[in-house]
Amino acid sequence: MSLNSIFQYFVPKDKKFFPLFEQASLNLIDIANALNEAVNIEDPSKRKEAYKRVRDLEHKGDDITHQIHLELGRNFITPFDREDIHTLASSLDDVADFIYDSANRMDLYHVTEMTPVIKELALLIVEAVEALNKGIQELRNLKNVRAIADACVRINSVENKADIVYNKAVADLFEFETDAIALIKHKEVLGTLETATDKCEDVANVLESILVKNA
Amino acid sequence: MSLNSIFQYFVPKDKKFFPLFEQASLNLIDIANALNEAVNIEDPSKRKEAYKRVRDLEHKGDDITHQIHLELGRNFITPFDREDIHTLASSLDDVADFIYDSANRMDLYHVTEMTPVIKELALLIVEAVEALNKGIQELRNLKNVRAIADACVRINSVENKADIVYNKAVADLFEFETDAIALIKHKEVLGTLETATDKCEDVANVLESILVKNA
Amino acid sequence: MSLNSIFQYFVPKDKKFFPLFEQASLNLIDIANALNEAVNIEDPSKRKEAYKRVRDLEHKGDDITHQIHLELGRNFITPFDREDIHTLASSLDDVADFIYDSANRMDLYHVTEMTPVIKELALLIVEAVEALNKGIQELRNLKNVRAIADACVRINSVENKADIVYNKAVADLFEFETDAIALIKHKEVLGTLETATDKCEDVANVLESILVKNA
Repeated sequence: MSLNSIFQYFVPKDKKFFPLFEQASLNLIDIANALNEAVNIEDPSKRKEAYKRVRDLEHKGDDITHQIHLELGRNFITPFDREDIHTLASSLDDVADFIYDSANRMDLYHVTEMTPVIKELALLIVEAVEALNKGIQELRNLKNVRAIADACVRINSVENKADIVYNKAVADLFEFETDAIALIKHKEVLGTLETATDKCEDVANVLESILVKNA
Repeated sequence: MSLNSIFQYFVPKDKKFFPLFEQASLNLIDIANALNEAVNIEDPSKRKEAYKRVRDLEHKGDDITHQIHLELGRNFITPFDREDIHTLASSLDDVADFIYDSANRMDLYHVTEMTPVIKELALLIVEAVEALNKGIQELRNLKNVRAIADACVRINSVENKADIVYNKAVADLFEFETDAIALIKHKEVLGTLETATDKCEDVANVLESILVKNA
Repeated sequence: MSLNSIFQYFVPKDKKFFPLFEQASLNLIDIANALNEAVNIEDPSKRKEAYKRVRDLEHKGDDITHQIHLELGRNFITPFDREDIHTLASSLDDVADFIYDSANRMDLYHVTEMTPVIKELALLIVEAVEALNKGIQELRNLKNVRAIADACVRINSVENKADIVYNKAVADLFEFETDAIALIKHKEVLGTLETATDKCEDVANVLESILVKNA
């Protein structure tokens, strides 16, 4: 692939975008870990603080996204197409939004019992953003296009697993939950958690698109 | 930004696309106002006519979108990338679709009581399309890139507000609504209204992408 | 339109991508037919096998998508923009995913009674993928840009019909279904079927975007 050569020309010049994308994806690891902590706190009254950390990290993510937009306004030369930088930044931001949404809904809807499925999905989100982070960290030197492609495959596989877990959990709700309102509430929370992994897959799609465009 | 200079070259030539985009976004103001009127009519039997106006305006929007596609087929020179014109037209059309969907579902599901939250979301949709219209009207002469960027920030802020209103309203439903079917129905209607503001944010994303691409 | 001339130059060279896209869209016809068969089997115990066929065909679709990605890695010259090949392949894959999701949810949620609305939506999915296949088969020689545009119009019209059927069916559920959990379950299944036609519309959007970009 000629991708490496194209990028090697630009990469030494770019000290703006790659560090910001790396910050954004490291922040996703932090926010996913904060969500994972929240769902593993047994005492509901102590979860508030973990939820607050998720929200603060979501705001930090917003600041990084805003920073990328500012740099796009200032810099004429970018390591890859300007619109792809914009799309990648937005798609990373969406992941943070849905992780925050998950925490926020569990908080707002007073979800007190953290079921094994909630914990499983929170863990899959951590796995997905860890794979995503590996892909993003490789964007910089692009010595290894394969590493990015592998990260995308990994993200897709985690999303697929989350899909199966979600569908099974909803089937169980239909089979065993007799309180309709409790059913809706749990379905909603599980759906938001599952959507967070969908948003990771969207980032993988953007990464793949950048790869094929520049190959 | 070199955006102005690039556009100034093309703008005098374009008498096709900008007027159509302006019509489309003015039509969004009309349709959002029609929805807002509908939810503020106290007598349910009198709402039918307002719902009909929403539908008629949605059809008018379809015609404008179709017109943009026809012009794309006829014109070789376009004020910005052809596929971005297509994407912008589609994204404006999606806003009209979801405003219509909101009205249509309230009508079909026999939602007779217009709660304060429904009114609040309808008003936020008006705010979002007004900001959106400001951005679209500035596309033409692009003397002021900042004005478009500001419109996008405004849209994002309205969408964020709608998100908070929606999440709080659903939390209230879970807390106070004991009739599960009424709960689902209201959640569905609120969700459609909120999605209309999401679609405004998607237009903002397209506008931002066009800006960064041409900067 | 200059589209034909541009494509005629490339088309003779391409023996990779068009056959794969054709396989992908023919596979969508198979999977839509398999779903349609499943919902028309009266004895629930005999549906398992039809569901399994849907799943197998979804896996076959995954293999074709993977093949397209591999070819993108190997080939420098592509019949149209590399990122559009990637987007088109992904959007076709999404259709297969949602057809499979529909079958999978009916299976997992133990939906035993196949209502007229379920059958109607399954038939509309068949109609949508047949129109889609016509558009895809025309991509190869592109003698007739109009044929692709017509296929897109047809897909949009089927999606629109599915929307109306879905909204009416949900309104009926709200009016006549008194068991909230049964209501949620049916709404979910109908929603997934309807989303499959939305995904066909997304493919139509990608096709239109490719047309306008290359016109």
